[in-house]
Amino acid sequence: MSDPRETGLVLDPKYDAAGLVTAVVTDAATGEVLMLAHMNADALAATLATGEATFWSRSRARLWKKGETSGNILRVVEARIDCDQDAVWLIVEPAGPACHTGARSCFYRRIAPGGLAPVA
Amino acid sequence: MSDPRETGLVLDPKYDAAGLVTAVVTDAATGEVLMLAHMNADALAATLATGEATFWSRSRARLWKKGETSGNILRVVEARIDCDQDAVWLIVEPAGPACHTGARSCFYRRIAPGGLAPVA
Repeated sequence: MSDPRETGLVLDPKYDAAGLVTAVVTDAATGEVLMLAHMNADALAATLATGEATFWSRSRARLWKKGETSGNILRVVEARIDCDQDAVWLIVEPAGPACHTGARSCFYRRIAPGGLAPVA
Repeated sequence: MSDPRETGLVLDPKYDAAGLVTAVVTDAATGEVLMLAHMNADALAATLATGEATFWSRSRARLWKKGETSGNILRVVEARIDCDQDAVWLIVEPAGPACHTGARSCFYRRIAPGGLAPVA
């Protein structure tokens, strides 16, 4: 594979038609997936500059620093990017619940036969 | 929050305009994020029915069972869904490298000052 985006060491995000990449956030201490969100170039730049996860809110059409109102910021320990540079993985230390429902993670239900079931 | 999609135990994925949800895949043994991909309703149904991760390939516009050619299937140990049901988390046992580049994970580079750096 000779695609420099895949093999190289240049940050060159492949934004989609809406100007976004997907971001997955995991807890540095537990490895748990906390949430998925989206980033435009400004959100990625803000995240890297401040060390605090900042996304693009598609519903509100504006930059959204996670925790800006709740205080539950996500401090970025490490940021990784995937092979084709259209997805970012943030390894974070969360200041509180990551989910707007108050759950530690947005993934608080597993898919079980016939429906969903709560996870611990 | 009284939205039954968020609080209930009914599987009711919120597909986007293209009919897709995002799927994040982690290694059951290590917790490492292996890859991100997309699923339409058929891909999610196939994944749940077979216990082997199946996605929708946007580039090829067809169902894509991970490992169908490489043999590197992803056996699903548990599937979770997020608060608004537009993202799925698959916890898997990978039969081999998850990335088409041959890397264990697609996230083989971290974002460092001035560029990217390989991760172990």
